Amino acid sequence: MLAAAEQGRTLAQKRYDSLVPKLRARLLQAHFALRSRKFPVVVIVSGADGAGKGDLVHRLNEWLDPRGVATHAFWAPSDEERERPSYWRFWRALPGRGRIGIFFGSWYTEPIIRRVLGHLKRRRFESELDRIVAFERMLAADGALFVKLWLHLPKAAQKKRLKKLERDGRIAPDDWKHYKLYNRFTKVSDRALRHTDSPAAAWHVVDATDRRHRDYTVGRILLDELTRRLKEDASKPVKTTVPRAVPARRQPPSALGRVDLGQALGAEDYARALDSWQGKLSKLAWAAHQQQRSMVMVFEGWDAAGKGSAIRRVTQAIDPRLYRVVGIAAPTDEERAQHYLWRFWRHLPRAGFSTIFDRSWYGRVLVERVEGFAPPADWGRAYDEINEFEAQMSDHGIIVSKFWVHISPEEQLKRFQERQRVDYKQYKITDEDWRNRDKWPAYAIAVDEMVARTSTGAAPWTLVAGNDKKFARVQILETLVRRLEAEL
Amino acid sequence: MLAAAEQGRTLAQKRYDSLVPKLRARLLQAHFALRSRKFPVVVIVSGADGAGKGDLVHRLNEWLDPRGVATHAFWAPSDEERERPSYWRFWRALPGRGRIGIFFGSWYTEPIIRRVLGHLKRRRFESELDRIVAFERMLAADGALFVKLWLHLPKAAQKKRLKKLERDGRIAPDDWKHYKLYNRFTKVSDRALRHTDSPAAAWHVVDATDRRHRDYTVGRILLDELTRRLKEDASKPVKTTVPRAVPARRQPPSALGRVDLGQALGAEDYARALDSWQGKLSKLAWAAHQQQRSMVMVFEGWDAAGKGSAIRRVTQAIDPRLYRVVGIAAPTDEERAQHYLWRFWRHLPRAGFSTIFDRSWYGRVLVERVEGFAPPADWGRAYDEINEFEAQMSDHGIIVSKFWVHISPEEQLKRFQERQRVDYKQYKITDEDWRNRDKWPAYAIAVDEMVARTSTGAAPWTLVAGNDKKFARVQILETLVRRLEAEL
Repeated sequence: MLAAAEQGRTLAQKRYDSLVPKLRARLLQAHFALRSRKFPVVVIVSGADGAGKGDLVHRLNEWLDPRGVATHAFWAPSDEERERPSYWRFWRALPGRGRIGIFFGSWYTEPIIRRVLGHLKRRRFESELDRIVAFERMLAADGALFVKLWLHLPKAAQKKRLKKLERDGRIAPDDWKHYKLYNRFTKVSDRALRHTDSPAAAWHVVDATDRRHRDYTVGRILLDELTRRLKEDASKPVKTTVPRAVPARRQPPSALGRVDLGQALGAEDYARALDSWQGKLSKLAWAAHQQQRSMVMVFEGWDAAGKGSAIRRVTQAIDPRLYRVVGIAAPTDEERAQHYLWRFWRHLPRAGFSTIFDRSWYGRVLVERVEGFAPPADWGRAYDEINEFEAQMSDHGIIVSKFWVHISPEEQLKRFQERQRVDYKQYKITDEDWRNRDKWPAYAIAVDEMVARTSTGAAPWTLVAGNDKKFARVQILETLVRRLEAEL
Repeated sequence: MLAAAEQGRTLAQKRYDSLVPKLRARLLQAHFALRSRKFPVVVIVSGADGAGKGDLVHRLNEWLDPRGVATHAFWAPSDEERERPSYWRFWRALPGRGRIGIFFGSWYTEPIIRRVLGHLKRRRFESELDRIVAFERMLAADGALFVKLWLHLPKAAQKKRLKKLERDGRIAPDDWKHYKLYNRFTKVSDRALRHTDSPAAAWHVVDATDRRHRDYTVGRILLDELTRRLKEDASKPVKTTVPRAVPARRQPPSALGRVDLGQALGAEDYARALDSWQGKLSKLAWAAHQQQRSMVMVFEGWDAAGKGSAIRRVTQAIDPRLYRVVGIAAPTDEERAQHYLWRFWRHLPRAGFSTIFDRSWYGRVLVERVEGFAPPADWGRAYDEINEFEAQMSDHGIIVSKFWVHISPEEQLKRFQERQRVDYKQYKITDEDWRNRDKWPAYAIAVDEMVARTSTGAAPWTLVAGNDKKFARVQILETLVRRLEAEL
């Protein structure tokens, strides 16, 4: 299976640049369509050392909607994992229906490595593969879509790649050791792939010699698989909405009023700044990991303020193994059975990792207050509860950053109208958005009080000038970088 | 607060024996009423070494319905816990609404001990207490009922108790060290109790000198608190049901047909056997814990077969810190979003602990099959999936035991009618029970196939002769003991 993949195909930069935007748009659309569907997607990224698994996972995260995808790397098991059957850690990482799980390393890693190193007898290896087949068949029968990717590197290419990694200081301790076992590794992998290749969970072997060819090919595979499955499902009609009258404008209150919404960045300045701050953030995120420091980032803001795209500029900079984006929508019934903070506690990251909350516990003093979901006694008490929650995080060494992405009502209207015009943005605008807009003044008061009462030294609010998206993104990245520089 | 509790009150055995049955019945009733209510119950058991916290927790578990209560002991934190703020482990243990969580050790333990040993400065101690007050106030405001119990031992009584523990070999390494600090411990505890005593989360100090007085008093406190809160809630009318016609009898198929339902035990033989097997099980459960071996016990059976009461005879024998009972009802929406085995994987115990499943993954091939909730392709595939699941457990060293509690249709009818007659048993009988009864033959076929296809060497089924409850309980205990003896 592997040798057949050595086709030496490449993709020129120009061609790549012309192909990728369309691919991304379609991937994103498919990903949004998946949300309302009833199947989970399991993406496995495996393959040779130096084939760029990390880069590829990074790319996929960039191309997908961060709220609907979680990446799982399987490093040394925690003691809670070690004390249970070995698949327990995979079960707890499985995506729910409507979500994508990217498995960077998986149930394949350990059997293959142990077999290559001779720690696993042939028969035992085969029975591990049987176990995998049964596991995948079971999940597929339950509806899971498998996209199993094997990044293959011809021997010469791997040598070249490892040398480059060595020069960049990015080589892992075992990489050269594994290289010496190249032939054996290839043979064992080939055996594993053949054994576990099934219609329900087929392998896609990708020649990883050329980076662009690799990424584009994988993007296409994922898109094709998603599209195929989505077509099999019944399609749901897209809901359209008629714009309402613009609400009367009011003076925004103090904190928000002080945000200078006129700030903007030109395209060139933006490109330069983005590159520079993302580069810094990338290094700092690894430094935080090495120091076992965690980050919690909270993103709140007006509808259409650009939270989602700002979050993407942050996640682009951070290795996907190091963060998780948690999108906060309606609570599940297990969450509803608990105190409202419970659902946030459960997502706190382990030491050295980060959680990005797209909306957060501040819903208590924003939507729940304004919409009357929580009585005044409840949301009134929440400021103290939240401060205490965040104090516990910072006492523990977690670096807490909170962003309110601010825009003017006029800018919001412009964006709403744009969303309704542009076909592939329609999923982003709902009746609820228009209803929320009618309540702008009430929200403004709630935001103001929230910022006043929950901006603390350890967990400060940053009010982001969001009328210019480019400016907003850079402001957020810079804030994070400065914070990390001060803390590490 | 503590000195005032030293009243030297005792409760004679005879009086205790006459009081307890009524208390237990009322506690159980209150516990069942709680199920449908919207508040969680947090019971904290703290106090002096040697005051019998462990025995008391055991007693409470005996008196309550094991399916609605979970006991949490907080030993050394796991690495996943260590890497998060210290309250994370408490948050993850909090009971959901309608459930009771017994905290054996709690957020009080560490601040008090560290203060006593001088590792915590006075100001830091006070701020830890403030944190506790805020935490409890927050949960209480959300509806949680707190029952905070402090078992107090006068100094002389503690000395006596520790000596006895020492003679029995049950003393913990730090106990005598702590005794030397008795005065300081009392002073610090008193300070903590005063600081954290509030209307929403009041302390109950119980003189623990006399064991029976201690247990009965605590039972009363818990009952009073539950009753008070339940009264505050709106009461719901009890649903009554009219018995249906008895379905036509059919010949039970092979495996079930071979169970000799005539087997029975006299009261005296039963008492002796129960005592003996429970004693053995108790020791073996600790031995398993020391060897880091886990147990998974599955209880299935006909409605009214006596699963619940059989489980109680098992849990009576095992230290509540070592097991958890998981009652399987309708899946939560997080569970529904996953493969049907996911909800069972998540409950697998850590090394050295046990999970008792009251109903289980076998629902897939029983109720889901018979009621048509799962199409034949799904439940047909489930036998292999289940065997694989159990093989993974036993490969990991988990000791898997499965019980089908069998009764005759006539016996079931007798018990249904009895349940409808007896007032406090009415909650146990629903329309659904009668509907299930109509499908007896279909269930019998499903049970038979289940036993045939999923009885494996590592995870055998035991068919329990349940027409005589006493015989059934002893059969189960004996099976568990023999299994453990063979495995440890």
